[in-house]
Amino acid sequence: MAKDVEIAEQAGGEFSAKDYQDPPPAPLIDAEELIQWSFYRALIAEFIATLLFLYVTVLTVIGYNVQTDRTKNTVDPDCGGVGVLGIAWAFGGMIFILVYCTAGISGGHINPAVTFGLFLARKVSLIRAVLYMVAQCLGAICGCGFVKAFQKSYYNDYGGGANQLHQGYNKGTGLGAEIIGTFVLVYTVFSATDPKRNARDSHVPVLAPLPIGFAVFMVHLATIPITGTGINPARSFGAAVIYNNDKAWDDQWIFWVGPFIGAAVAAFYHQYILRAAAIKALGSFRSNA
Amino acid sequence: MAKDVEIAEQAGGEFSAKDYQDPPPAPLIDAEELIQWSFYRALIAEFIATLLFLYVTVLTVIGYNVQTDRTKNTVDPDCGGVGVLGIAWAFGGMIFILVYCTAGISGGHINPAVTFGLFLARKVSLIRAVLYMVAQCLGAICGCGFVKAFQKSYYNDYGGGANQLHQGYNKGTGLGAEIIGTFVLVYTVFSATDPKRNARDSHVPVLAPLPIGFAVFMVHLATIPITGTGINPARSFGAAVIYNNDKAWDDQWIFWVGPFIGAAVAAFYHQYILRAAAIKALGSFRSNA
Amino acid sequence: MAKDVEIAEQAGGEFSAKDYQDPPPAPLIDAEELIQWSFYRALIAEFIATLLFLYVTVLTVIGYNVQTDRTKNTVDPDCGGVGVLGIAWAFGGMIFILVYCTAGISGGHINPAVTFGLFLARKVSLIRAVLYMVAQCLGAICGCGFVKAFQKSYYNDYGGGANQLHQGYNKGTGLGAEIIGTFVLVYTVFSATDPKRNARDSHVPVLAPLPIGFAVFMVHLATIPITGTGINPARSFGAAVIYNNDKAWDDQWIFWVGPFIGAAVAAFYHQYILRAAAIKALGSFRSNA
Amino acid sequence: MAKDVEIAEQAGGEFSAKDYQDPPPAPLIDAEELIQWSFYRALIAEFIATLLFLYVTVLTVIGYNVQTDRTKNTVDPDCGGVGVLGIAWAFGGMIFILVYCTAGISGGHINPAVTFGLFLARKVSLIRAVLYMVAQCLGAICGCGFVKAFQKSYYNDYGGGANQLHQGYNKGTGLGAEIIGTFVLVYTVFSATDPKRNARDSHVPVLAPLPIGFAVFMVHLATIPITGTGINPARSFGAAVIYNNDKAWDDQWIFWVGPFIGAAVAAFYHQYILRAAAIKALGSFRSNA
Repeated sequence: MAKDVEIAEQAGGEFSAKDYQDPPPAPLIDAEELIQWSFYRALIAEFIATLLFLYVTVLTVIGYNVQTDRTKNTVDPDCGGVGVLGIAWAFGGMIFILVYCTAGISGGHINPAVTFGLFLARKVSLIRAVLYMVAQCLGAICGCGFVKAFQKSYYNDYGGGANQLHQGYNKGTGLGAEIIGTFVLVYTVFSATDPKRNARDSHVPVLAPLPIGFAVFMVHLATIPITGTGINPARSFGAAVIYNNDKAWDDQWIFWVGPFIGAAVAAFYHQYILRAAAIKALGSFRSNA
Repeated sequence: MAKDVEIAEQAGGEFSAKDYQDPPPAPLIDAEELIQWSFYRALIAEFIATLLFLYVTVLTVIGYNVQTDRTKNTVDPDCGGVGVLGIAWAFGGMIFILVYCTAGISGGHINPAVTFGLFLARKVSLIRAVLYMVAQCLGAICGCGFVKAFQKSYYNDYGGGANQLHQGYNKGTGLGAEIIGTFVLVYTVFSATDPKRNARDSHVPVLAPLPIGFAVFMVHLATIPITGTGINPARSFGAAVIYNNDKAWDDQWIFWVGPFIGAAVAAFYHQYILRAAAIKALGSFRSNA
Repeated sequence: MAKDVEIAEQAGGEFSAKDYQDPPPAPLIDAEELIQWSFYRALIAEFIATLLFLYVTVLTVIGYNVQTDRTKNTVDPDCGGVGVLGIAWAFGGMIFILVYCTAGISGGHINPAVTFGLFLARKVSLIRAVLYMVAQCLGAICGCGFVKAFQKSYYNDYGGGANQLHQGYNKGTGLGAEIIGTFVLVYTVFSATDPKRNARDSHVPVLAPLPIGFAVFMVHLATIPITGTGINPARSFGAAVIYNNDKAWDDQWIFWVGPFIGAAVAAFYHQYILRAAAIKALGSFRSNA
Repeated sequence: MAKDVEIAEQAGGEFSAKDYQDPPPAPLIDAEELIQWSFYRALIAEFIATLLFLYVTVLTVIGYNVQTDRTKNTVDPDCGGVGVLGIAWAFGGMIFILVYCTAGISGGHINPAVTFGLFLARKVSLIRAVLYMVAQCLGAICGCGFVKAFQKSYYNDYGGGANQLHQGYNKGTGLGAEIIGTFVLVYTVFSATDPKRNARDSHVPVLAPLPIGFAVFMVHLATIPITGTGINPARSFGAAVIYNNDKAWDDQWIFWVGPFIGAAVAAFYHQYILRAAAIKALGSFRSNA
């Protein structure tokens, strides 16, 4: 599979005659976008998408905890609930459909870490990045608020879907899990939206939202036992605000620092290693040979 | 990701030179379609699709309840059944394949709430909308009838797959869950079938049935513990008719009012916020600037 | 969604100026194909695909039964096995990848009922249909043979993956379940491979193997508790030959008659209702109006 | 479905006027590629991808074992964990997203058996094949190292995700299971990346990473009870190095010999049967007739 890519690259010759077009880097502050309806529409879309994301996923988490509570649950079976697998599907599947629905409106971030990664890669302006994060956090708070409003006693009894370090894991492990988990997600986002793909790889059609959703699914399978899996600061923040528990607030920094480091590493990996920005700047190996 | 969309919009300039074509709104009553075979074929397709939908999903629900009944079930394991996760897959997966199969024939609604939302957006005529709903309800009744005919005692013992408010939740919660759940579904339907997508977003190929099926899957994961999840009045009505239980009839209104409100809000959100119909009518922000 | 399809149909006018091409019906006996290597290659591909299908799925079924046997299983947990959901995934997922792999070689039938349906629709010649079925049955026998060779005692103890009517269901129910289940599968196959799709429905891209695999997955979720789910005579026959149990042989006819009826009904439904072959022959409604 | 393929083949006539282009076989040693940055970038991508693969999957395996341990686990429910099904999803899903992400960079092997199969089919040079395998093994070691670093006690207590023959199965069964399992995977890889597909089968669009991921998922469902499922020597080797247990090392050869035999058989099957390389060399059946 690798071979034909090589050939394409050779044919293109030292990167001079590229068969694809990189969009120019986004400006830090783009006054133009502030007077367009499409900008505000994007903020609304991010808000609504993050609201729906938290609503569905936290409702699934609470339902799971009710189903598996042996102390209270005498009639219903304690097996046959959605399970940790069902929770992981809820997070991954919602990201799939929400990225699918909002990609054409706002780019489909629904996650401050993704926004941060795309900002570092100069795909969105600073002002857009900041306002997206605000919209995402507000959406997450409202989404959790709906869940609490619907079933207050269950919500408080069963942890409110808040991210916290689980017993037996230290802060370093939690932070590491968040960093690598977010790296997996943001790396997939960069790969899926790379303009190079469209031009080059005819046998790998770009179907961005599905692998992005699967990346979220996979990370949840792996790290739910450790931190409940954040990899999305808005998700962790919204749940913490509504659940408002000391332990959740004490661990909150992990779910901001970890994802932001992970996103930054993924942006660096994609831009400087895979897209070889550094090498291009210095001249390619080949022209030196 | 957002950026190139912006650029495209700027290039198009004040919506005047659009790169896509909105079909004209459907008339309320279209006498022309009544004399076409394709119209009756569409009704048959909706009938059969809803029949198959209810048949497979209710059979799965009954099978799950048999598997997890500890009082009668002494030989078989009470774990290892399909679980709530399997039920959610049955609903979501059937919608995926049935939308896939009938999209080219009838548009693949299989759900009166979807039909209602598309009617509000003027994508289908009034007469088509009403007859689709009739076909869907009849199909749902027949689908549940098959399940009952196949296993009468199990069907009656295990709730008949009917939607009802579960213990511990009040009517307001049930209604809210149905509204937001249907919003998620109909919002996905609008996003997936937007003519704008085809022209604009080359990195988000239109693969409509899969995200629509996933939307149904996700909502079931979240709200099965609350109402069993309707978000489809034909599904709730068909099961109620065949199960014919007082509680199921008492709660029936929730499964019509909720989905219709959710669909209306989704149609409004898509047409007036995301597609900015209101803004376009008033002139864009930008031309005022 | 329905609307633009209508418009396309109107534009085409009374089916006279079709924007797609139906291939001519296959001859009953095509001597030409017997002297082509591609014909024998197709038989080999069907044989290998059915072998792999039975090998993976029956191994999954046996593994599940071992995991959930409480009488022998004292160390391992009886929960956490793949579950009925995992079995359904094994059948559906294998069909997805095998149809994907063999579609370009043999058409990717892997199922005598599918072959029968496509023969009725005159998509394959009689001789090809018969030889495909022979190859499929031989492949299924070999696939089950591998499983038995690998773990003889488990294989015999845990039912050999053979299809039989489960306790509490009568023959009529089993036959009905097989008919409707095969209808769902073959209807999806026809929809996915309809030449009309490629030309008409730009918003429903043809991605045939995935919905076909999902159809198999769905039917297994619903009818595993009734018959173990056949909907594929080769699968039922291969398991019966290797397991060689009286009960499995007594019920064997259900798993041939049911799928063949279901496939015939699906072929009829697709050709005469959805594709309106009957109507076309009589002249369309519209030209009579 | 088979028919139109036939017609295409006839139209092409005795393979003389092919509608697709086979790339020339890769040289054994390609000095040219050693001086290109894209070659080293590919090695880095394989290293990182295999690291992420082992990290996520082994973390999932350990988490599962913690959840289902009844001796230590008194508070948490022993059901409702991710289950064997969740483990199978973790392996299959990670391969899906990693092949998706790295296909354009390195070809997306992430598995020495896949690299070996593609080398046999002359798709990659010898030097590339060897260095890919080294990068994959190093990545796997690092990925398992992260898991152990994060949760040392759990890692050692719960088997470290290492592949070993499970009780009750002999070495022959384990070897056979690895051979057939790898055959399924590598056969899917060849089918998905066949240049013939792009040109011929318009109704089977090439969406390579998804079926490849599903193939891994399916094989895990079937053979986790036998060997834990290797089908990837780097995965087995990395886990053995970090877990460093006698039994894991004793069985290690199975997880190299099995996958390499399976990959070789798949390469032979695809090149000499399905692509009919042998027949083409001798002249086609048809020109002899």
